[in-house]
Amino acid sequence: MYGFKLIAKDRNTKARTGVLSTAHGEIETPIFMPVGTQATVKALTPEQLKECKAQIILGNTYHLFLRPGHKVIEHLGGLHKFMNWDRPILTDSGGYQVFSLSELRKITEEGVEFKSHLDGSKKFLSPEIALEIQNSLNSDIVMVLDECPPYPSTYDYINLSLALTTKWAKRARDAWDYSVEKDGRYQFGIVQGGMIKELRRKATSQLIEIGFDGYAIGGLSVGEPKNLMYEVLGYSVEWLPENKPRYLMGVGKPEDILYAVEQGVDMFDCVLPTRNARNGQLFTKKGTINIKQEKYKLDNKPVEEGCDCYTCRNFSRAYLRHLFHAREILSSVLNTIHNVRFFLRLMEEIRESIKQQKFSEYKREFLKNYNNSEVF
Amino acid sequence: MYGFKLIAKDRNTKARTGVLSTAHGEIETPIFMPVGTQATVKALTPEQLKECKAQIILGNTYHLFLRPGHKVIEHLGGLHKFMNWDRPILTDSGGYQVFSLSELRKITEEGVEFKSHLDGSKKFLSPEIALEIQNSLNSDIVMVLDECPPYPSTYDYINLSLALTTKWAKRARDAWDYSVEKDGRYQFGIVQGGMIKELRRKATSQLIEIGFDGYAIGGLSVGEPKNLMYEVLGYSVEWLPENKPRYLMGVGKPEDILYAVEQGVDMFDCVLPTRNARNGQLFTKKGTINIKQEKYKLDNKPVEEGCDCYTCRNFSRAYLRHLFHAREILSSVLNTIHNVRFFLRLMEEIRESIKQQKFSEYKREFLKNYNNSEVF
Repeated sequence: MYGFKLIAKDRNTKARTGVLSTAHGEIETPIFMPVGTQATVKALTPEQLKECKAQIILGNTYHLFLRPGHKVIEHLGGLHKFMNWDRPILTDSGGYQVFSLSELRKITEEGVEFKSHLDGSKKFLSPEIALEIQNSLNSDIVMVLDECPPYPSTYDYINLSLALTTKWAKRARDAWDYSVEKDGRYQFGIVQGGMIKELRRKATSQLIEIGFDGYAIGGLSVGEPKNLMYEVLGYSVEWLPENKPRYLMGVGKPEDILYAVEQGVDMFDCVLPTRNARNGQLFTKKGTINIKQEKYKLDNKPVEEGCDCYTCRNFSRAYLRHLFHAREILSSVLNTIHNVRFFLRLMEEIRESIKQQKFSEYKREFLKNYNNSEVF
Repeated sequence: MYGFKLIAKDRNTKARTGVLSTAHGEIETPIFMPVGTQATVKALTPEQLKECKAQIILGNTYHLFLRPGHKVIEHLGGLHKFMNWDRPILTDSGGYQVFSLSELRKITEEGVEFKSHLDGSKKFLSPEIALEIQNSLNSDIVMVLDECPPYPSTYDYINLSLALTTKWAKRARDAWDYSVEKDGRYQFGIVQGGMIKELRRKATSQLIEIGFDGYAIGGLSVGEPKNLMYEVLGYSVEWLPENKPRYLMGVGKPEDILYAVEQGVDMFDCVLPTRNARNGQLFTKKGTINIKQEKYKLDNKPVEEGCDCYTCRNFSRAYLRHLFHAREILSSVLNTIHNVRFFLRLMEEIRESIKQQKFSEYKREFLKNYNNSEVF
C-alpha cells in the first residue's frame, strides 16, 4: 500500500500529480510543505495547520538535534506526538543549517564538526548520525546528509564536495538498510553539483545507482540568478527516474513553484509564507501586499476576496494592519494562516489543473494576475 | 429582557450568582473577564477564547483611543466587528492608563490632558469624551472616567480627588442619558476614596444618588498590603445596592477572587492569566508552576491533570518547556489558553458551588490545595 503512485500527467508539459503514502497518511503531489523548524510551524497550532489543509510539514534536524535534543523527543514518543501533529513529517539532514548557521565547521571524510549557534558547544554530524537523529524523530521522509556548496564556487571545489556528498549518500543508504522501522517511511537522496551540468549529471547517476526512495534537488535558490536556477533545474529534473518523487529543496516563490512543477517537480518547502507573514507581507493572486501600509487603515475588505482561509473569513485588512502596528502576537498568527493557506490553495489548484490537462493555462493565468500586481 | 438578575445567594456568605443580559448576550456572574487591551486578548483568536468559554472580555479605552483610534473602529462597525468577537465587551474609561502609562498629565475640572505613550502627541479625555469613545466602540458595559489616587496618598489628596471623580461621574451619567443606543448596554460608576472608610462611604452614597447600572470598586490592588485591601473591599461591597452588578477592577489572584466573591463581588478582570502565561507561569489547582524549569524537560504529563483546556488535552509540559526556551510564538498561545481556561473554570466552579450552597467548602478546599503548592 505504501509507495508513490502517479495519478495524472499533463500532456503539454512535464507536470504530474501523484500520491505518496506514508505511515502517517497520504500526501498529494505537487505539494508544499510548511516549515516547522523547532517542532512548530511558527505561530500555528496543529489544528490551524489542518484548517489550512496542510498535509505534510518539514522539521529541521539541526535545530531539533540542538534543542530539545532528538533523544528527548524520542523519549516523548517521537516528533509527531511531541508536537501533536499526526500527519506526515519530512526532516532535512541538518547539513544545510550546519553550513549556514553554525560556526567553526570542520569537514572530514567521517562527517562534520561544528559549534552550536545556541551555546557554542561542539557537535558532530555524520551520515549515520543524521539518520539516527531522524529515526529518533520518526520522520516519514528522511534526507541524507550532504554538503551544499555556496554560490559561486569553483569547479574543483564543487567536484571535491560532490565526491564527499556521494560517499555520504552511500553510507546513509547503508545505514538506512539497517534501520528497524522503515514501513511507510522513505529516504531521499540529494542531487548536488553546483551549477555545473556535468557534475549534476554525475551526481544524479551516482544517486540512482545507490537507489533512493525519492530524489531531492539541492543547491538551488542559493543566490544564483533566476535564469541559471531555471536552467539547472530543467536538466536536473529530467535525469531523475519518473516513478520516484522529486523534491526541490527550499523553493519557493509562487512563480518558481509553477516553473518547477512544469519541469516535473513534486515537492516543495520554503519559509517564505511563514517568515513573510510575520513581517506583514501577505500573498494574494494579485501579488503581495504589505499590511502595514496606511492605505489599509480603514479597509474593511479581507486580505483577498474569495480566499477561504480563517483570516479572510473573519478579519479585515484594517484589523490586520492594527495588529501589526500594535505588535500583537495575533498579527503573526492571522497573517501566517493566510499565507500558508495561500500556498496550499495554489498547490490544490495546480494538482487540479494537471488532472484536467490545463496546467499551462492555469500557470499562464496565475502569472498574468500575479505579476500585474496592481496597487489595491 | 435586559438587566441583572440574581439567581442564587449563598446562605453562609455574601456570595451570589446571577445573570447580566446585554445586547451581545448573557454573562453569568461571578465572572472573570480576560483583558483584550488592543482589540485582542493577547495571543488568542476569538475562537480560542470561546473554546476557553470566555463570556465577556475587557477592552482598554486608552489604548484603542490612541491606536487605531475609536473613529477608525466606529467606521469599521464597532469593536465587536473589528476584532470579530460577538459576545459582550466591557471597556474601561481610559483614566487608569492615563495615570499609569502616559506622561505630562494635567488634570483640570474639565478633564485630563496627557501625552500619548506611543508618539508623545497631546490628547485630552473628559467624562464626556471617555463616554463618546466607548459609544463609538459600542461596548456593552462602559465605565465612567475617574481618578485613581496612588497608594499611599494623604487624606486631603484623596478627598480632593474624590470630589472631582464624583463631579465627573455626574457629568458622565448626564452624557449617558443623552446617548442614543443604550438598549442592553450599561454604564457603571466607580467607587474611589483610597483606603479611607469615611471617603469610600461618601463616594458610594454619591454614586448611588446619581444612579448607575452597576458599581465598580476602583483603587484597590494598587500596592497596598493585602489585609488592608481585604478590609476596604469588605465594607465597600456592603454599601452597594444588592440588585446591581458589582465589579472589582484589576483583581486578580485566585485567592483574591475567592475572597471578593465571598464579600458579594460579581465581576473581575486582570492581566494575570495572560501576562504570566507569556512569562511561562501556569496556574494549576496545586499552585503555579514555571514551565521553563529543567524538571519538565522529559515530563510527558499535561500542565494539569484533569484540565479540559486545549493545551492540556494535546500537549505535554516537556513540549511547552521546549516552546518557551525556543521563544516560539506558540508558547504564548498555548500557555495563554491554559491560564485563561484555568480562571474561567475557577469561576464556573464558584458559580456552581454558590448554586449548591457550598461556596465556603469550595473556597476552603481550593485554597488548601492551591496553597499547598508542592513542587511537582
